[in-house]
Amino acid sequence: MAKFITIGERIHCISPVIRAAMDAKDPAPILKRAKEQLDAGAVYLDVNIGPAEKTGEELMKWAVQLLQSNFDNVPLCLDTANRKAIEAGISVYNRSKGKPIVNSADAGGRIENIDLAAANDAISIALCKGDAGIPNNDERAAFLQMMLERGMEHGMEPTDLWFDPLFLVIKGQQDQQIEVLNFIKQIADMGLNSTGGLSNVSNMMPKHIRPIMDSVTVAMAINNGLTSAIVNPCDVRLMETIKSADIIMNHTLYADSYLEI
Amino acid sequence: MAKFITIGERIHCISPVIRAAMDAKDPAPILKRAKEQLDAGAVYLDVNIGPAEKTGEELMKWAVQLLQSNFDNVPLCLDTANRKAIEAGISVYNRSKGKPIVNSADAGGRIENIDLAAANDAISIALCKGDAGIPNNDERAAFLQMMLERGMEHGMEPTDLWFDPLFLVIKGQQDQQIEVLNFIKQIADMGLNSTGGLSNVSNMMPKHIRPIMDSVTVAMAINNGLTSAIVNPCDVRLMETIKSADIIMNHTLYADSYLEI
Repeated sequence: MAKFITIGERIHCISPVIRAAMDAKDPAPILKRAKEQLDAGAVYLDVNIGPAEKTGEELMKWAVQLLQSNFDNVPLCLDTANRKAIEAGISVYNRSKGKPIVNSADAGGRIENIDLAAANDAISIALCKGDAGIPNNDERAAFLQMMLERGMEHGMEPTDLWFDPLFLVIKGQQDQQIEVLNFIKQIADMGLNSTGGLSNVSNMMPKHIRPIMDSVTVAMAINNGLTSAIVNPCDVRLMETIKSADIIMNHTLYADSYLEI
Repeated sequence: MAKFITIGERIHCISPVIRAAMDAKDPAPILKRAKEQLDAGAVYLDVNIGPAEKTGEELMKWAVQLLQSNFDNVPLCLDTANRKAIEAGISVYNRSKGKPIVNSADAGGRIENIDLAAANDAISIALCKGDAGIPNNDERAAFLQMMLERGMEHGMEPTDLWFDPLFLVIKGQQDQQIEVLNFIKQIADMGLNSTGGLSNVSNMMPKHIRPIMDSVTVAMAINNGLTSAIVNPCDVRLMETIKSADIIMNHTLYADSYLEI
Protein backbone atom coordinates (compact mmCIF):
# COMPACT_ATOMS: atom_id res chain seq x y z
CA MET A 1 0.00 0.00 0.00
CA ALA A 2 1.14 3.50 -0.78
CA LYS A 3 1.74 6.35 1.63
CA PHE A 4 -1.09 8.81 2.13
CA ILE A 5 -0.87 11.80 -0.24
CA THR A 6 -1.41 15.25 1.21
CA ILE A 7 -2.37 18.10 -1.11
CA GLY A 8 -1.50 21.45 0.50
CA GLU A 9 -4.40 23.87 0.17
CA ARG A 10 -2.79 27.15 1.19
CA ILE A 11 -1.98 28.66 -2.24
CA HIS A 12 -5.52 29.87 -2.74
CA CYS A 13 -6.71 33.15 -4.18
CA ILE A 14 -9.25 33.46 -1.38
CA SER A 15 -6.32 34.55 0.77
CA PRO A 16 -5.80 38.31 0.31
CA VAL A 17 -2.02 37.89 0.40
CA ILE A 18 -2.08 35.27 -2.35
CA ARG A 19 -4.67 37.17 -4.37
CA ALA A 20 -2.46 40.27 -4.35
CA ALA A 21 0.63 38.24 -5.22
CA MET A 22 -1.16 36.64 -8.16
CA ASP A 23 -2.43 40.00 -9.38
CA ALA A 24 1.03 41.57 -9.14
CA LYS A 25 2.97 38.44 -10.21
CA ASP A 26 4.91 38.83 -7.00
CA PRO A 27 6.70 35.53 -6.32
CA ALA A 28 7.66 36.03 -2.66
CA PRO A 29 4.32 35.42 -0.85
CA ILE A 30 3.57 32.39 -3.03
CA LEU A 31 7.01 30.87 -2.56
CA LYS A 32 6.78 31.45 1.18
CA ARG A 33 3.50 29.55 1.45
CA ALA A 34 4.84 26.82 -0.79
CA LYS A 35 7.93 26.35 1.35
CA GLU A 36 5.94 26.29 4.58
CA GLN A 37 3.70 23.57 3.24
CA LEU A 38 6.50 21.47 1.78
CA ASP A 39 8.54 21.79 4.97
CA ALA A 40 5.47 20.57 6.86
CA GLY A 41 5.27 17.45 4.68
CA ALA A 42 2.87 18.30 1.84
CA VAL A 43 3.31 16.06 -1.21
CA TYR A 44 1.26 18.00 -3.79
CA LEU A 45 0.51 21.72 -3.72
CA ASP A 46 -2.86 22.97 -4.84
CA VAL A 47 -2.78 26.17 -6.90
CA ASN A 48 -6.16 27.83 -6.81
CA ILE A 49 -6.38 30.87 -9.05
CA GLY A 50 -10.16 31.26 -8.81
CA PRO A 51 -12.32 31.61 -11.93
CA ALA A 52 -9.58 33.74 -13.59
CA GLU A 53 -11.62 34.13 -16.71
CA LYS A 54 -9.44 36.65 -18.46
CA THR A 55 -5.89 36.12 -17.22
CA GLY A 56 -6.08 32.49 -16.17
CA GLU A 57 -3.89 30.94 -18.86
CA GLU A 58 -0.97 33.27 -18.33
CA LEU A 59 -1.39 33.21 -14.54
CA MET A 60 -1.47 29.43 -14.25
CA LYS A 61 1.59 29.08 -16.49
CA TRP A 62 3.43 31.61 -14.37
CA ALA A 63 2.46 29.87 -11.10
CA VAL A 64 3.38 26.39 -12.33
CA GLN A 65 6.77 27.50 -13.58
CA LEU A 66 7.42 29.58 -10.48
CA LEU A 67 6.68 26.71 -8.09
CA GLN A 68 8.29 23.91 -10.06
CA SER A 69 11.47 25.86 -10.77
CA ASN A 70 11.90 26.79 -7.11
CA PHE A 71 10.91 23.49 -5.53
CA ASP A 72 12.44 20.74 -7.61
CA ASN A 73 9.42 20.14 -9.86
CA VAL A 74 7.00 19.80 -6.97
CA PRO A 75 3.83 18.07 -8.21
CA LEU A 76 0.84 20.39 -8.46
CA CYS A 77 -2.92 20.31 -8.37
CA LEU A 78 -4.32 22.88 -10.81
CA ASP A 79 -7.44 24.39 -9.36
CA THR A 80 -9.69 26.67 -11.39
CA ALA A 81 -12.98 26.62 -13.26
CA ASN A 82 -11.10 27.97 -16.31
CA ARG A 83 -10.35 24.92 -18.40
CA LYS A 84 -8.02 26.74 -20.76
CA ALA A 85 -5.99 27.83 -17.74
CA ILE A 86 -5.62 24.21 -16.63
CA GLU A 87 -4.47 23.21 -20.11
CA ALA A 88 -2.05 26.11 -20.18
CA GLY A 89 -0.64 25.06 -16.80
CA ILE A 90 -0.23 21.47 -17.96
CA SER A 91 1.54 22.66 -21.13
CA VAL A 92 4.47 23.89 -19.03
CA TYR A 93 4.21 21.28 -16.26
CA ASN A 94 7.16 18.98 -15.49
CA ARG A 95 5.97 15.46 -14.60
CA SER A 96 9.17 14.12 -13.07
CA LYS A 97 7.70 14.14 -9.52
CA GLY A 98 4.14 13.18 -10.43
CA LYS A 99 1.32 13.80 -12.87
CA PRO A 100 -0.61 17.06 -12.63
CA ILE A 101 -3.98 16.88 -10.90
CA VAL A 102 -7.02 18.60 -12.39
CA ASN A 103 -9.17 20.05 -9.60
CA SER A 104 -11.94 19.19 -10.26
CA ALA A 105 -14.58 17.28 -12.21
CA ASP A 106 -18.01 16.17 -11.06
CA ALA A 107 -20.82 14.14 -12.59
CA GLY A 108 -22.76 17.27 -13.49
CA GLY A 109 -21.67 20.40 -15.30
CA ARG A 110 -17.99 19.76 -14.74
CA ILE A 111 -17.82 16.26 -16.20
CA GLU A 112 -15.81 17.46 -19.17
CA ASN A 113 -12.87 18.04 -16.86
CA ILE A 114 -12.48 14.27 -16.93
CA ASP A 115 -12.03 14.43 -20.70
CA LEU A 116 -9.52 17.22 -20.18
CA ALA A 117 -7.53 15.17 -17.67
CA ALA A 118 -7.66 12.14 -19.97
CA ALA A 119 -6.46 14.15 -22.96
CA ASN A 120 -3.53 15.45 -20.94
CA ASP A 121 -2.58 12.25 -19.09
CA ALA A 122 -3.43 13.96 -15.83
CA ILE A 123 -5.10 12.84 -12.61
CA SER A 124 -8.62 14.14 -12.08
CA ILE A 125 -10.30 14.81 -8.78
CA ALA A 126 -13.83 13.52 -9.32
CA LEU A 127 -16.47 14.84 -6.94
CA CYS A 128 -19.19 12.24 -6.42
CA LYS A 129 -21.98 14.71 -7.00
CA GLY A 130 -24.17 16.09 -9.74
CA ASP A 131 -25.44 19.62 -10.07
CA ALA A 132 -27.94 19.54 -7.21
CA GLY A 133 -27.84 18.90 -3.49
CA ILE A 134 -25.92 16.52 -1.30
CA PRO A 135 -26.03 12.94 -2.56
CA ASN A 136 -26.68 9.86 -0.46
CA ASN A 137 -24.40 6.84 -0.94
CA ASP A 138 -26.49 5.25 -3.69
CA GLU A 139 -26.24 8.51 -5.59
CA ARG A 140 -22.54 8.86 -4.84
CA ALA A 141 -22.02 5.36 -6.23
CA ALA A 142 -23.97 6.17 -9.38
CA PHE A 143 -21.98 9.39 -9.92
CA LEU A 144 -18.73 7.52 -9.33
CA GLN A 145 -19.69 4.88 -11.86
CA MET A 146 -20.61 7.53 -14.44
CA MET A 147 -17.27 9.31 -14.02
CA LEU A 148 -15.27 6.09 -13.94
CA GLU A 149 -16.80 5.00 -17.23
CA ARG A 150 -16.24 8.43 -18.75
CA GLY A 151 -12.58 8.35 -17.78
CA MET A 152 -12.05 4.81 -19.02
CA GLU A 153 -13.78 5.57 -22.32
CA HIS A 154 -11.24 8.34 -22.76
CA GLY A 155 -8.36 6.03 -21.95
CA MET A 156 -7.66 6.91 -18.33
CA GLU A 157 -6.33 4.49 -15.76
CA PRO A 158 -9.06 4.02 -13.12
CA THR A 159 -6.53 4.97 -10.44
CA ASP A 160 -6.04 8.38 -12.08
CA LEU A 161 -9.53 9.34 -10.99
CA TRP A 162 -9.35 10.41 -7.36
CA PHE A 163 -12.93 10.17 -6.13
CA ASP A 164 -14.08 12.76 -3.63
CA PRO A 165 -16.90 11.48 -1.38
CA LEU A 166 -17.68 15.07 -0.28
CA PHE A 167 -16.84 15.60 3.36
CA LEU A 168 -19.84 17.19 5.09
CA VAL A 169 -19.89 19.73 7.87
CA ILE A 170 -20.56 18.12 11.26
CA LYS A 171 -22.43 21.18 12.47
CA GLY A 172 -25.58 20.46 10.49
CA GLN A 173 -24.82 17.07 9.01
CA GLN A 174 -23.52 15.14 12.00
CA ASP A 175 -25.68 12.12 11.30
CA GLN A 176 -24.22 11.72 7.79
CA GLN A 177 -20.56 11.39 8.81
CA ILE A 178 -20.71 7.60 9.03
CA GLU A 179 -22.24 7.47 5.55
CA VAL A 180 -19.32 9.47 4.12
CA LEU A 181 -16.87 7.16 5.89
CA ASN A 182 -18.71 4.15 4.53
CA PHE A 183 -18.49 5.54 1.02
CA ILE A 184 -14.74 5.97 1.37
CA LYS A 185 -14.62 2.27 2.21
CA GLN A 186 -16.69 1.48 -0.89
CA ILE A 187 -14.21 3.42 -3.04
CA ALA A 188 -11.27 1.59 -1.46
CA ASP A 189 -12.96 -1.80 -1.84
CA MET A 190 -13.15 -1.11 -5.59
CA GLY A 191 -9.37 -0.57 -5.61
CA LEU A 192 -9.81 3.10 -6.44
CA ASN A 193 -8.19 6.25 -5.10
CA SER A 194 -9.93 8.94 -3.09
CA THR A 195 -9.42 12.47 -1.84
CA GLY A 196 -11.44 15.36 -0.49
CA GLY A 197 -11.50 18.68 1.29
CA LEU A 198 -11.11 17.35 4.78
CA SER A 199 -11.50 20.53 6.82
CA ASN A 200 -15.08 20.90 5.68
CA VAL A 201 -16.04 18.58 8.54
CA SER A 202 -15.03 21.15 11.16
CA ASN A 203 -16.37 24.19 9.36
CA MET A 204 -17.93 26.72 11.77
CA MET A 205 -16.43 25.02 14.84
CA PRO A 206 -14.33 26.99 17.35
CA LYS A 207 -10.78 27.41 16.13
CA HIS A 208 -9.18 25.24 18.83
CA ILE A 209 -11.45 22.32 17.99
CA ARG A 210 -10.84 22.20 14.25
CA PRO A 211 -7.43 20.46 14.27
CA ILE A 212 -8.80 17.88 16.73
CA MET A 213 -11.91 17.09 14.70
CA ASP A 214 -10.02 17.10 11.39
CA SER A 215 -7.43 14.73 12.85
CA VAL A 216 -9.94 12.22 14.17
CA THR A 217 -11.82 12.32 10.87
CA VAL A 218 -8.71 11.73 8.80
CA ALA A 219 -7.62 8.81 11.00
CA MET A 220 -11.00 7.16 10.54
CA ALA A 221 -11.03 7.92 6.82
CA ILE A 222 -7.53 6.49 6.30
CA ASN A 223 -8.62 3.42 8.23
CA ASN A 224 -11.42 3.06 5.66
CA GLY A 225 -8.99 3.42 2.77
CA LEU A 226 -8.82 7.15 1.98
CA THR A 227 -5.68 7.59 -0.11
CA SER A 228 -5.32 11.38 -0.21
CA ALA A 229 -6.77 14.61 1.15
CA ILE A 230 -6.65 18.32 0.50
CA VAL A 231 -5.41 19.72 3.80
CA ASN A 232 -3.59 22.48 5.59
CA PRO A 233 -0.23 20.75 6.09
CA CYS A 234 0.76 23.45 8.59
CA ASP A 235 -1.77 21.94 11.01
CA VAL A 236 0.76 20.05 13.15
CA ARG A 237 -1.73 17.79 14.85
CA LEU A 238 -3.24 16.79 11.53
CA MET A 239 0.13 15.91 10.00
CA GLU A 240 1.14 13.96 13.12
CA THR A 241 -2.09 12.02 12.73
CA ILE A 242 -1.55 11.30 9.05
CA LYS A 243 2.04 10.15 9.62
CA SER A 244 0.92 7.91 12.49
CA ALA A 245 -1.93 6.49 10.44
CA ASP A 246 0.59 5.59 7.73
CA ILE A 247 2.53 3.63 10.35
CA ILE A 248 -0.53 1.78 11.67
CA MET A 249 -1.67 0.96 8.11
CA ASN A 250 1.85 -0.30 7.43
CA HIS A 251 2.34 2.20 4.57
CA THR A 252 5.59 3.47 6.08
CA LEU A 253 8.04 1.76 8.38
CA TYR A 254 8.11 2.87 12.02
CA ALA A 255 11.16 4.68 13.36
CA ASP A 256 11.27 6.72 16.58
CA SER A 257 11.94 9.74 14.36
CA TYR A 258 8.94 9.23 12.05
CA LEU A 259 7.26 12.50 13.02
CA GLU A 260 10.32 14.46 11.99
CA ILE A 261 10.58 12.89 8.55
CA MET B 1 -25.27 3.42 19.28
CA ALA B 2 -23.82 3.90 22.74
CA LYS B 3 -21.07 6.26 23.79
CA PHE B 4 -17.58 4.82 23.99
CA ILE B 5 -16.73 3.48 27.46
CA THR B 6 -13.36 4.38 28.94
CA ILE B 7 -11.93 2.25 31.74
CA GLY B 8 -9.32 4.22 33.69
CA GLU B 9 -6.21 2.15 34.25
CA ARG B 10 -4.35 4.22 36.84
CA ILE B 11 -5.32 2.43 40.07
CA HIS B 12 -2.77 -0.30 39.55
CA CYS B 13 -0.49 -1.91 42.07
CA ILE B 14 2.41 -1.65 39.65
CA SER B 15 2.56 2.00 40.70
CA PRO B 16 4.67 2.28 43.87
CA VAL B 17 2.33 4.93 45.31
CA ILE B 18 -0.72 2.74 44.80
CA ARG B 19 1.10 -0.36 46.00
CA ALA B 20 2.05 1.38 49.25
CA ALA B 21 -1.47 2.75 49.69
CA MET B 22 -2.96 -0.72 49.21
CA ASP B 23 -0.49 -2.23 51.67
CA ALA B 24 -1.19 0.44 54.29
CA LYS B 25 -4.92 0.79 53.52
CA ASP B 26 -4.26 4.48 53.02
CA PRO B 27 -7.22 5.96 51.14
CA ALA B 28 -5.71 9.28 50.07
CA PRO B 29 -3.47 8.24 47.12
CA ILE B 30 -6.16 5.95 45.72
CA LEU B 31 -8.91 8.55 46.01
CA LYS B 32 -6.62 11.13 44.39
CA ARG B 33 -6.03 8.94 41.35
CA ALA B 34 -9.68 8.05 41.15
CA LYS B 35 -10.73 11.69 41.19
CA GLU B 36 -8.17 12.65 38.53
CA GLN B 37 -9.47 9.95 36.23
CA LEU B 38 -13.15 10.69 36.79
CA ASP B 39 -12.57 14.42 36.33
CA ALA B 40 -10.85 13.57 33.03
CA GLY B 41 -13.91 11.64 31.84
CA ALA B 42 -13.30 8.00 32.78
CA VAL B 43 -16.51 5.96 32.97
CA TYR B 44 -15.25 2.84 34.74
CA LEU B 45 -12.21 2.61 37.01
CA ASP B 46 -9.99 -0.44 36.91
CA VAL B 47 -8.77 -1.64 40.32
CA ASN B 48 -5.71 -3.80 39.87
CA ILE B 49 -4.52 -5.34 43.11
CA GLY B 50 -2.05 -7.76 41.50
CA PRO B 51 -2.06 -11.48 42.35
CA ALA B 52 -2.86 -10.63 46.01
CA GLU B 53 -2.91 -14.26 46.97
CA LYS B 54 -3.16 -13.83 50.71
CA THR B 55 -4.91 -10.55 51.33
CA GLY B 56 -6.85 -10.16 48.11
CA GLU B 57 -10.37 -10.67 49.40
CA GLU B 58 -10.10 -8.14 52.16
CA LEU B 59 -8.19 -5.68 49.96
CA MET B 60 -10.65 -5.80 47.06
CA LYS B 61 -13.60 -5.32 49.41
CA TRP B 62 -11.87 -2.35 50.96
CA ALA B 63 -11.04 -0.79 47.59
CA VAL B 64 -14.53 -1.29 46.15
CA GLN B 65 -16.20 0.24 49.18
CA LEU B 66 -13.69 3.06 49.38
CA LEU B 67 -14.17 4.08 45.74
CA GLN B 68 -17.91 3.58 45.51
CA SER B 69 -18.64 5.40 48.77
CA ASN B 70 -16.51 8.38 47.73
CA PHE B 71 -17.55 8.60 44.09
CA ASP B 72 -21.27 7.98 43.92
CA ASN B 73 -21.06 4.23 43.24
CA VAL B 74 -18.61 4.62 40.36
CA PRO B 75 -18.64 1.42 38.28
CA LEU B 76 -15.50 -0.67 38.67
CA CYS B 77 -13.43 -3.21 36.82
CA LEU B 78 -12.02 -5.75 39.27
CA ASP B 79 -8.59 -6.76 38.14
CA THR B 80 -6.69 -9.61 39.77
CA ALA B 81 -5.78 -13.23 39.18
CA ASN B 82 -7.29 -14.03 42.60
CA ARG B 83 -10.80 -15.23 41.84
CA LYS B 84 -11.88 -15.19 45.45
CA ALA B 85 -10.86 -11.54 45.62
CA ILE B 86 -13.07 -10.74 42.63
CA GLU B 87 -16.01 -12.51 44.25
CA ALA B 88 -15.36 -10.70 47.50
CA GLY B 89 -15.30 -7.37 45.66
CA ILE B 90 -18.56 -8.15 43.89
CA SER B 91 -20.17 -9.13 47.20
CA VAL B 92 -19.97 -5.52 48.38
CA TYR B 93 -20.34 -3.86 44.93
CA ASN B 94 -23.22 -1.44 44.27
CA ARG B 95 -24.60 -1.87 40.73
CA SER B 96 -26.58 1.36 40.47
CA LYS B 97 -24.11 2.88 37.95
CA GLY B 98 -23.21 -0.30 36.06
CA LYS B 99 -22.40 -3.97 36.47
CA PRO B 100 -18.95 -4.88 37.79
CA ILE B 101 -16.41 -5.99 35.17
CA VAL B 102 -14.24 -9.06 35.77
CA ASN B 103 -10.76 -8.44 34.34
CA SER B 104 -10.13 -10.87 32.77
CA ALA B 105 -10.91 -14.22 31.21
CA ASP B 106 -9.26 -15.85 28.20
CA ALA B 107 -9.82 -19.04 26.22
CA GLY B 108 -6.99 -20.81 28.03
CA GLY B 109 -6.27 -21.14 31.74
CA ARG B 110 -8.47 -18.24 32.67
CA ILE B 111 -11.68 -19.41 31.02
CA GLU B 112 -13.34 -20.07 34.36
CA ASN B 113 -13.48 -16.34 34.95
CA ILE B 114 -16.35 -16.38 32.47
CA ASP B 115 -18.23 -18.77 34.74
CA LEU B 116 -17.43 -16.48 37.65
CA ALA B 117 -18.78 -13.42 35.78
CA ALA B 118 -21.88 -15.38 34.76
CA ALA B 119 -22.55 -16.58 38.32
CA ASN B 120 -22.31 -13.00 39.57
CA ASP B 121 -24.21 -11.22 36.76
CA ALA B 122 -21.02 -9.36 35.90
CA ILE B 123 -19.39 -8.27 32.66
CA SER B 124 -16.30 -10.24 31.67
CA ILE B 125 -13.40 -8.97 29.65
CA ALA B 126 -12.60 -11.90 27.36
CA LEU B 127 -9.12 -11.91 25.84
CA CYS B 128 -9.19 -13.60 22.44
CA LYS B 129 -6.18 -15.78 23.20
CA GLY B 130 -5.29 -19.16 24.57
CA ASP B 131 -2.31 -20.03 26.70
CA ALA B 132 0.36 -19.71 24.01
CA GLY B 133 1.57 -17.03 21.65
CA ILE B 134 -0.12 -14.29 19.72
CA PRO B 135 -3.13 -15.50 17.75
CA ASN B 136 -3.96 -14.66 14.16
CA ASN B 137 -7.51 -13.66 13.31
CA ASP B 138 -8.74 -17.18 12.61
CA GLU B 139 -7.50 -18.15 16.05
CA ARG B 140 -8.94 -15.02 17.65
CA ALA B 141 -12.31 -15.89 16.09
CA ALA B 142 -12.14 -19.45 17.39
CA PHE B 143 -11.25 -18.25 20.89
CA LEU B 144 -14.06 -15.70 20.77
CA GLN B 145 -16.56 -18.37 19.76
CA MET B 146 -15.39 -20.66 22.56
CA MET B 147 -15.79 -17.93 25.17
CA LEU B 148 -19.10 -16.72 23.76
CA GLU B 149 -20.53 -20.23 23.96
CA ARG B 150 -19.17 -20.69 27.45
CA GLY B 151 -20.79 -17.47 28.62
CA MET B 152 -24.13 -18.23 26.97
CA GLU B 153 -24.17 -21.75 28.42
CA HIS B 154 -23.84 -20.12 31.81
CA GLY B 155 -26.68 -17.71 31.08
CA MET B 156 -24.75 -14.55 30.16
CA GLU B 157 -25.99 -11.97 27.72
CA PRO B 158 -23.57 -12.00 24.73
CA THR B 159 -23.08 -8.24 25.21
CA ASP B 160 -21.74 -8.84 28.73
CA LEU B 161 -18.64 -10.43 27.24
CA TRP B 162 -16.31 -7.60 26.19
CA PHE B 163 -13.93 -9.20 23.72
CA ASP B 164 -10.35 -8.03 23.74
CA PRO B 165 -8.63 -8.46 20.34
CA LEU B 166 -5.19 -7.94 21.99
CA PHE B 167 -3.61 -4.72 20.87
CA LEU B 168 -0.07 -5.43 19.73
CA VAL B 169 3.04 -3.31 20.08
CA ILE B 170 3.85 -1.45 16.87
CA LYS B 171 7.57 -1.66 17.57
CA GLY B 172 7.89 -5.29 16.61
CA GLN B 173 4.44 -6.08 15.29
CA GLN B 174 3.76 -3.18 12.98
CA ASP B 175 2.54 -5.39 10.17
CA GLN B 176 -0.15 -6.92 12.38
CA GLN B 177 -1.95 -3.69 13.32
CA ILE B 178 -4.39 -3.90 10.42
CA GLU B 179 -5.26 -7.45 11.40
CA VAL B 180 -6.14 -6.32 14.93
CA LEU B 181 -8.28 -3.51 13.51
CA ASN B 182 -9.98 -5.97 11.18
CA PHE B 183 -10.76 -8.24 14.10
CA ILE B 184 -12.38 -5.36 15.97
CA LYS B 185 -14.62 -4.94 12.94
CA GLN B 186 -15.47 -8.65 13.03
CA ILE B 187 -16.48 -8.35 16.69
CA ALA B 188 -18.64 -5.31 15.91
CA ASP B 189 -20.22 -6.99 12.91
CA MET B 190 -21.38 -9.76 15.25
CA GLY B 191 -23.09 -7.13 17.41
CA LEU B 192 -20.70 -7.77 20.27
CA ASN B 193 -18.78 -5.46 22.58
CA SER B 194 -15.04 -5.04 22.67
CA THR B 195 -12.29 -3.54 24.78
CA GLY B 196 -8.54 -3.77 25.23
CA GLY B 197 -5.38 -2.32 26.66
CA LEU B 198 -4.92 0.38 24.07
CA SER B 199 -1.55 1.79 25.13
CA ASN B 200 0.16 -1.48 24.30
CA VAL B 201 0.42 -0.24 20.71
CA SER B 202 2.86 2.52 21.67
CA ASN B 203 4.86 0.50 24.16
CA MET B 204 8.61 1.34 23.99
CA MET B 205 8.03 4.47 21.88
CA PRO B 206 9.41 7.84 22.97
CA LYS B 207 7.17 9.47 25.58
CA HIS B 208 6.04 12.36 23.36
CA ILE B 209 4.87 9.97 20.64
CA ARG B 210 2.71 7.70 22.78
CA PRO B 211 -0.36 9.98 23.10
CA ILE B 212 -0.25 10.59 19.34
CA MET B 213 -0.03 6.94 18.38
CA ASP B 214 -2.60 5.87 20.98
CA SER B 215 -5.00 8.56 19.72
CA VAL B 216 -4.74 7.58 16.08
CA THR B 217 -5.16 3.92 16.98
CA VAL B 218 -8.26 4.54 19.07
CA ALA B 219 -9.85 6.68 16.34
CA MET B 220 -9.33 3.89 13.83
CA ALA B 221 -10.53 1.25 16.29
CA ILE B 222 -13.69 3.20 17.16
CA ASN B 223 -14.31 3.62 13.44
CA ASN B 224 -14.22 -0.19 13.22
CA GLY B 225 -16.65 -0.57 16.10
CA LEU B 226 -14.54 -0.76 19.29
CA THR B 227 -16.94 -0.04 22.15
CA SER B 228 -14.56 0.40 25.08
CA ALA B 229 -10.88 0.59 26.00
CA ILE B 230 -8.67 0.46 29.06
CA VAL B 231 -6.85 3.78 28.94
CA ASN B 232 -5.12 6.52 30.83
CA PRO B 233 -7.93 9.09 30.90
CA CYS B 234 -5.46 11.76 32.00
CA ASP B 235 -3.99 11.63 28.49
CA VAL B 236 -5.69 14.79 27.20
CA ARG B 237 -5.10 14.12 23.51
CA LEU B 238 -6.51 10.63 23.83
CA MET B 239 -9.67 11.80 25.56
CA GLU B 240 -10.14 14.60 23.02
CA THR B 241 -9.88 11.96 20.32
CA ILE B 242 -12.40 9.63 21.96
CA LYS B 243 -14.89 12.46 22.50
CA SER B 244 -14.49 13.60 18.89
CA ALA B 245 -14.87 10.05 17.61
CA ASP B 246 -18.13 9.77 19.54
CA ILE B 247 -19.34 12.88 17.66
CA ILE B 248 -18.33 11.56 14.24
CA MET B 249 -19.90 8.17 14.94
CA ASN B 250 -23.05 10.03 16.05
CA HIS B 251 -22.92 8.47 19.53
CA THR B 252 -23.13 11.90 21.18
CA LEU B 253 -24.60 15.13 19.89
CA TYR B 254 -22.17 17.87 18.85
CA ALA B 255 -21.98 21.08 20.87
CA ASP B 256 -19.13 23.60 20.72
CA SER B 257 -18.44 22.69 24.36
CA TYR B 258 -18.22 18.93 23.80
CA LEU B 259 -14.59 18.67 24.86
CA GLU B 260 -15.39 20.18 28.24
CA ILE B 261 -18.25 17.79 29.01
